[in-house]
Amino acid sequence: MKKDIYRERLDAPLNENVVNFISSIKDDLWIAEEDIIGTEAHNIMLYEQKILTKNEIKEILSSLENIRKNLVNGKLKINNDFEDIHPFIEKCVIDEIGIDIGGKLHTGRSRNDQVSVDIRLKIRNELNELSEKLIGFIEVLLNLSQKTIKAYVPLYTHFQRGQLGVFAHYINNYISQIIRSLERIEEVYNRINKSPLGACAIGGTSINIERTRTAELLGFDGIIENSIDAISSRDYIYEVLMVNSLISLQFSRIAEDLLIWSTKEFQFIDLDEQYCSVSSVMPHKKNPDTLELIRSKTAKIISDHFSASMIIKAIPSGYFKDFQELKPLLKNSFDTLFSIIEIFSGIFKTIKINEVNMIKTIDESYILALEIAESLVHLFNIPFRLSHKIVGNLVKESSNPKDIMDKEKIESLIKKIYKQKIDLPPNFIQNIQNLEKCLENRISQGSPSISEVKKTIKVLDKQREAFNNKHIKRVEKIKDATLQREAIIKRLIS
Amino acid sequence: MKKDIYRERLDAPLNENVVNFISSIKDDLWIAEEDIIGTEAHNIMLYEQKILTKNEIKEILSSLENIRKNLVNGKLKINNDFEDIHPFIEKCVIDEIGIDIGGKLHTGRSRNDQVSVDIRLKIRNELNELSEKLIGFIEVLLNLSQKTIKAYVPLYTHFQRGQLGVFAHYINNYISQIIRSLERIEEVYNRINKSPLGACAIGGTSINIERTRTAELLGFDGIIENSIDAISSRDYIYEVLMVNSLISLQFSRIAEDLLIWSTKEFQFIDLDEQYCSVSSVMPHKKNPDTLELIRSKTAKIISDHFSASMIIKAIPSGYFKDFQELKPLLKNSFDTLFSIIEIFSGIFKTIKINEVNMIKTIDESYILALEIAESLVHLFNIPFRLSHKIVGNLVKESSNPKDIMDKEKIESLIKKIYKQKIDLPPNFIQNIQNLEKCLENRISQGSPSISEVKKTIKVLDKQREAFNNKHIKRVEKIKDATLQREAIIKRLIS
Amino acid sequence: MKKDIYRERLDAPLNENVVNFISSIKDDLWIAEEDIIGTEAHNIMLYEQKILTKNEIKEILSSLENIRKNLVNGKLKINNDFEDIHPFIEKCVIDEIGIDIGGKLHTGRSRNDQVSVDIRLKIRNELNELSEKLIGFIEVLLNLSQKTIKAYVPLYTHFQRGQLGVFAHYINNYISQIIRSLERIEEVYNRINKSPLGACAIGGTSINIERTRTAELLGFDGIIENSIDAISSRDYIYEVLMVNSLISLQFSRIAEDLLIWSTKEFQFIDLDEQYCSVSSVMPHKKNPDTLELIRSKTAKIISDHFSASMIIKAIPSGYFKDFQELKPLLKNSFDTLFSIIEIFSGIFKTIKINEVNMIKTIDESYILALEIAESLVHLFNIPFRLSHKIVGNLVKESSNPKDIMDKEKIESLIKKIYKQKIDLPPNFIQNIQNLEKCLENRISQGSPSISEVKKTIKVLDKQREAFNNKHIKRVEKIKDATLQREAIIKRLIS
Amino acid sequence: MKKDIYRERLDAPLNENVVNFISSIKDDLWIAEEDIIGTEAHNIMLYEQKILTKNEIKEILSSLENIRKNLVNGKLKINNDFEDIHPFIEKCVIDEIGIDIGGKLHTGRSRNDQVSVDIRLKIRNELNELSEKLIGFIEVLLNLSQKTIKAYVPLYTHFQRGQLGVFAHYINNYISQIIRSLERIEEVYNRINKSPLGACAIGGTSINIERTRTAELLGFDGIIENSIDAISSRDYIYEVLMVNSLISLQFSRIAEDLLIWSTKEFQFIDLDEQYCSVSSVMPHKKNPDTLELIRSKTAKIISDHFSASMIIKAIPSGYFKDFQELKPLLKNSFDTLFSIIEIFSGIFKTIKINEVNMIKTIDESYILALEIAESLVHLFNIPFRLSHKIVGNLVKESSNPKDIMDKEKIESLIKKIYKQKIDLPPNFIQNIQNLEKCLENRISQGSPSISEVKKTIKVLDKQREAFNNKHIKRVEKIKDATLQREAIIKRLIS
Repeated sequence: MKKDIYRERLDAPLNENVVNFISSIKDDLWIAEEDIIGTEAHNIMLYEQKILTKNEIKEILSSLENIRKNLVNGKLKINNDFEDIHPFIEKCVIDEIGIDIGGKLHTGRSRNDQVSVDIRLKIRNELNELSEKLIGFIEVLLNLSQKTIKAYVPLYTHFQRGQLGVFAHYINNYISQIIRSLERIEEVYNRINKSPLGACAIGGTSINIERTRTAELLGFDGIIENSIDAISSRDYIYEVLMVNSLISLQFSRIAEDLLIWSTKEFQFIDLDEQYCSVSSVMPHKKNPDTLELIRSKTAKIISDHFSASMIIKAIPSGYFKDFQELKPLLKNSFDTLFSIIEIFSGIFKTIKINEVNMIKTIDESYILALEIAESLVHLFNIPFRLSHKIVGNLVKESSNPKDIMDKEKIESLIKKIYKQKIDLPPNFIQNIQNLEKCLENRISQGSPSISEVKKTIKVLDKQREAFNNKHIKRVEKIKDATLQREAIIKRLIS
Repeated sequence: MKKDIYRERLDAPLNENVVNFISSIKDDLWIAEEDIIGTEAHNIMLYEQKILTKNEIKEILSSLENIRKNLVNGKLKINNDFEDIHPFIEKCVIDEIGIDIGGKLHTGRSRNDQVSVDIRLKIRNELNELSEKLIGFIEVLLNLSQKTIKAYVPLYTHFQRGQLGVFAHYINNYISQIIRSLERIEEVYNRINKSPLGACAIGGTSINIERTRTAELLGFDGIIENSIDAISSRDYIYEVLMVNSLISLQFSRIAEDLLIWSTKEFQFIDLDEQYCSVSSVMPHKKNPDTLELIRSKTAKIISDHFSASMIIKAIPSGYFKDFQELKPLLKNSFDTLFSIIEIFSGIFKTIKINEVNMIKTIDESYILALEIAESLVHLFNIPFRLSHKIVGNLVKESSNPKDIMDKEKIESLIKKIYKQKIDLPPNFIQNIQNLEKCLENRISQGSPSISEVKKTIKVLDKQREAFNNKHIKRVEKIKDATLQREAIIKRLIS
Repeated sequence: MKKDIYRERLDAPLNENVVNFISSIKDDLWIAEEDIIGTEAHNIMLYEQKILTKNEIKEILSSLENIRKNLVNGKLKINNDFEDIHPFIEKCVIDEIGIDIGGKLHTGRSRNDQVSVDIRLKIRNELNELSEKLIGFIEVLLNLSQKTIKAYVPLYTHFQRGQLGVFAHYINNYISQIIRSLERIEEVYNRINKSPLGACAIGGTSINIERTRTAELLGFDGIIENSIDAISSRDYIYEVLMVNSLISLQFSRIAEDLLIWSTKEFQFIDLDEQYCSVSSVMPHKKNPDTLELIRSKTAKIISDHFSASMIIKAIPSGYFKDFQELKPLLKNSFDTLFSIIEIFSGIFKTIKINEVNMIKTIDESYILALEIAESLVHLFNIPFRLSHKIVGNLVKESSNPKDIMDKEKIESLIKKIYKQKIDLPPNFIQNIQNLEKCLENRISQGSPSISEVKKTIKVLDKQREAFNNKHIKRVEKIKDATLQREAIIKRLIS
Repeated sequence: MKKDIYRERLDAPLNENVVNFISSIKDDLWIAEEDIIGTEAHNIMLYEQKILTKNEIKEILSSLENIRKNLVNGKLKINNDFEDIHPFIEKCVIDEIGIDIGGKLHTGRSRNDQVSVDIRLKIRNELNELSEKLIGFIEVLLNLSQKTIKAYVPLYTHFQRGQLGVFAHYINNYISQIIRSLERIEEVYNRINKSPLGACAIGGTSINIERTRTAELLGFDGIIENSIDAISSRDYIYEVLMVNSLISLQFSRIAEDLLIWSTKEFQFIDLDEQYCSVSSVMPHKKNPDTLELIRSKTAKIISDHFSASMIIKAIPSGYFKDFQELKPLLKNSFDTLFSIIEIFSGIFKTIKINEVNMIKTIDESYILALEIAESLVHLFNIPFRLSHKIVGNLVKESSNPKDIMDKEKIESLIKKIYKQKIDLPPNFIQNIQNLEKCLENRISQGSPSISEVKKTIKVLDKQREAFNNKHIKRVEKIKDATLQREAIIKRLIS
């Protein structure tokens, strides 16, 4: 199979090392089906524009459908000697139906707009899959949140115990972040879902093509107008990688939480054994390897983003082969993210929350200190900075957390610092020590009080549903375009 | 001035080295006014919630307004011994009006939500300034585009001459990219313009605050609900840095174009001398230093983005001091971008386009080869792959570009490759060589034909206007909130 | 003061915005003294080569010495309108002694070689300071290591308790890493300590200069031969930033250890209060802010390294203004690293090790499991994979760590898994539970047995001393060159 | 084949998704042979220490040799269900020779030290291969340099023509950079070539192993003492990636030079067609795709380095699974670099230098301006700053390069600026215009004068030879160790 179908202007073929070096054909399998679909849409348009005859379009579409089916079935034998997928598929068609018709396939376009259309089609699907998986993950998290509304836990800042909270509050925090990323996915999707097809090499074509028609056939929301922009800009890849990076950043932080909480020293959670590994030598070990790999694999996704920055930044306007290296970055970014969501979903479905340990930690901590300080503000209108000072001194003088639950000490410090004699109500300490009441008093919006947490869960669930609806619409628009194309193809082939 | 107003729980003060190491007070000047504004809004709300008396709010607001005015006038003496701006301003108030009232300033909030509100207020302004500058830059570019609609130039791919185009087409390409970034700015703005205030340390407060009220007073579109999310997430910083990175990427590529075009070998453009430097030793040099610095300063912006990735990724949920290092990254990112836009605007206002050289380059090139190939498709329905082969061979056999403008050679190659005898029309070559006609024939949407370029300019100008209108609305919403606050303050102070 | 002393070939001056954009003069203060020293050496050579007369060199050196003294005293008034430090100092000299002599200052060199010589001189000093500080830090660590040879601690892998060790073993691990970085510093130093001076703009000069002489006068070990290489390569900056990055990586990991160990849940260490911050709202908090800032500031150093990659990668051979942005990266990298070493030294000098908690953690752990397994290998030649299985099952069947210290259970598992009846010696369990003995048995080289730890401390101290000696030699070579120059200058001036 | 041979302590196996997520077995093929070799050395030592009997070592070695041969022959069937290569090979041995002997294989070591020894063995070979390839590339470059000693070319700074030079001078610049990287490779090699084996999990072992013996058997130069350091530090991976990054940086800049020089506008070089690609649509294109891919693939290598930074930085002391992701980064870094060197070698072997165009460019340039200025210094002792001004004005007043070769204009400018009447010698202009003479006058060391270039070539060739000798020694030391091991194995097996 002659691989160099474009190479008429040169005498020497690429030598073998060079083919290995420049060929992207293995990576191109990722976009092979998209390539065929794009070619079909382009040729349907050529036919509608009377550039192809009825017979020509029949032959071309039949051949492309053949190749597509073999590709899907895994029967297509890829020839690694080709530079990339585009000439390979063109050559397959030509071999099947002859140059007289097959040679018209590539009329009015170039590999430069073609590869960009392929990648946009692919990204579109990947973003939809990402949405779907994230929405599924949110369901898992919401479920866990429901179950842990009353699971008291210390909330940490600086790795130090801060305020009283409930476990569900942490989970809702995760969900809120994912919700914002769903929003970003949608925005990026809308910007990307434009067709560059017909920009040709860089400056358009004198062939009477109709760019909006191919856009419509492929389910795009419009076209990328300027032909240089269409073949030269890679912001669409950059911002997809960025969204994936941002999600990775959030996921890495979640993994970090779980790693800490599953140390024996914290022991707030137990990972299910199926997510843990063991040691080849230390018989007692149960290691959270999955979480560690989430941490490092997300680093890879983020640095892939950096790699893309470096590649894109280096080049002037126009198409350059440098772009080819962006494709495997995209693929890796999505594949890794998908597998992480899967693992995370499994982990959160099977995780065990150790409420006993969490309560024990609360009991051994000073996390009710702020409750005391704010109570002094409520009850006696002591300026917060002074009540903070009073409790600060209370803590300083204590040798363990129990010591600060001492009405007399507090009264004496009030006197010393606030310069007033105040009698605390008899049940002052009991009220503070009542965890349920403590949280109930936390009336600010978005706090971990039971009622706020419940409210938040409802809000998050609604947001999840809204994004799911938008997701479904996007998927349906693609499906509609596919059905339209299939109907046309069926009609033209038969 | 006692700097450690929170430090009651500890005996030892920070030692001096440590203060130098951890203090962010110099960087905090960037958000100092925002800090005061946020505190004013919070305290107005405390008054409205009856947590402060009429007299207390009067004293507090008077003092804050004093400090704010001194800050704006440059009279405020910052004390570098403070850890950061927050205790410094609280201490200024306390020193002025006493602890009994001043000590109530910080009721129901924490530095953790406060710093996030400050940065969001600041970013909001910076994003608006960025929009404004970009819109101004688009005007400069549109103006240049108008003037170069008929300036023929080769369009390059792979640094090699590709197709005929006009200079305006390159400029429109730049504008299209900036338009998309304006879209991103808007999206990010909407997501960021939410208030975290009232999330307190991490778990809310038992003080009866009203978070939506402070949000309203500060012109936010709503609140960040979950209190952990509000103080712990930094996606809002990450995505701002990302938008700036993406713009930087685009700008670096523009600089690269100009650098190449201003070599003596290309000489398509002349930079105005005021944007060029000279050599200390080579008397003849005129160097495009500004462009080179745009290239390297954008690298800085991009790597600041990755610095932020690394910082944020490392930490679990909760507030950590690591975040402090994000502020200077943001500041540098915006400042550098602003100066680049200014320089670029100046460059494009004063740039000289050398149409003579550009035409000369076209004449010495093969860039009309595709025109020949497509003409063979038009006129004789030769399959494109064969007409590509015919012209490929034509180029191979030529020793200079003129050689391919040879009717007989083409006819003979058609015969050899297409196996048919075809007589080209007598004016075939003249038609090809007529640059005006060539472009006129480029009928695909978004091509560099004069009519398409003109159409595009109109579209781009409309988009510019639409973004400008949105920009104005955002600015006005902030202004309205400011006026509302000022009226309240005036009323409460008097 | 006319700032554009090179700008004869152009009409228009740089406009003010452009000067602000391109001027590096503020950053150049970092290398100002080096710039003068380099100029002095170059001019001494010009005199020795008879290019300057006795009187000329006298005037030039007097003027340069004046400027240098004012610089050191802080009296030199820098004019920010200059593009950079080089024309500024040349202009100072010309203003003082006139153009007829002062105009000869820059004979046979260019800013391109000059800036590279300045930066190399500066880096040289910074690397020496870095060595010195690291060696000092090692002393602090060795001291702590001495004190904690018998402080038992669990050694962790995967954040899970692994094997028994001593605290000193962790510290020695830190020292070993720093030792390797001292080695790298030395290697990089030797490669960098070469003179580019005399490479001129890019292609050398027809002035009869003697490059090896200026190299000698500046204490360099030789010259960078090829003139393009001398002005165009920036590997020397890249590899310095890389060494700093690598040290940062190690330091960040140390900070991470300390952060974990200073949680209330681990509580192996207490940071001295002077290295901790408090909360504006939670009265009980004591936060390890310094450690968190080490973690984020090291991220900055690492991303500065990548910023440099991006800047350098973008440019072809030759000098480009892009390089200018590398200087602040270098400065920040060293300054931050120096401050981190200082903070770390303070932290490790004042840190409190909680041996009680560490022992308690050991007691509550399974970390002696491997000891049991290896004992079965020793005593009864049970294949390790089986003894690992035996103890694995022992742990699985236990409900707390004490449970595995059960002779009969072990015997029964041996029987079940090894299929042999074995009687464990009566003191089997006691021997395992004796921590001192356990470590004593750890006879492999480099283990945390007391004797190995002691041996290692001695080895590390010797290595420290060896690097210190090399450090002193490097410093003395620079000093010798300085004395030689000063003697010449004194002679020529008088 | 039971895959979980270590998993006795847990009930649940890893679920399938998790195995896919955490298994590195495919990546581990890269170190499979090293793993076996390391295991052989460890077991020989166990025998010598009398921990294994003669029969046991015979069985173990026979089995390992079997596996190794099957691996090399490609007959070994890897089971992807294993977590990684280490349990897989242990299980193969146990399956073959039974648990009673095979179960002793892993005595006194852990996967943690094992994987580090494997990677070090592998890196060692890769670094040697890298040296060899770079030395070969230098030969190609030296050959080209020899041929282009007299090929005049402008030397560029800021993309603008600077000084006259010869093409060989650029090539020598490349070689000098590669030489310094060979030095770095050597340094890193020496630091890496240490054995971590015997550090066991993290704290050594009570088995009576002899770490220095395994180090010797594997050709290491010593051991990594501290057991935590041995299993936890990854500076050795970081600095290898860094050296590869630095080489990539240099290579990318070389590619950038060639890309510019092969534009039609410069046309200093012609790439051989076998290194060029064509367009699917523009029949005339010949695109330097290989160079563009070098530019982007080097970006990948550099960002892999960043990825490693991010991964390593995130983790405290101890072994964490995160490390697993470093292996594919290393593999990709070396593989890509090897292919780039191969492509570059081919390109430079077949490149065509267009001396005619280069001379033409010189003729149309002002690059002799500095020659005029320096001549005025030589001949009339005019201060350089004034002669620079004179020639600056000369260029300003000229409308093309020929104009500055005007004796009278120069004389008049001298009078105007230097205020003296000077008669230039009659042959002044001819001397300047004589390119050969011009270069001859460039007497500074390392300049592109023919004699300096010739001298430099000799120096570079000697350096190449010296590094080659060191390379050979390193390879031989490994070979010696291999022979020693093979002899022992042969003896013990037979």
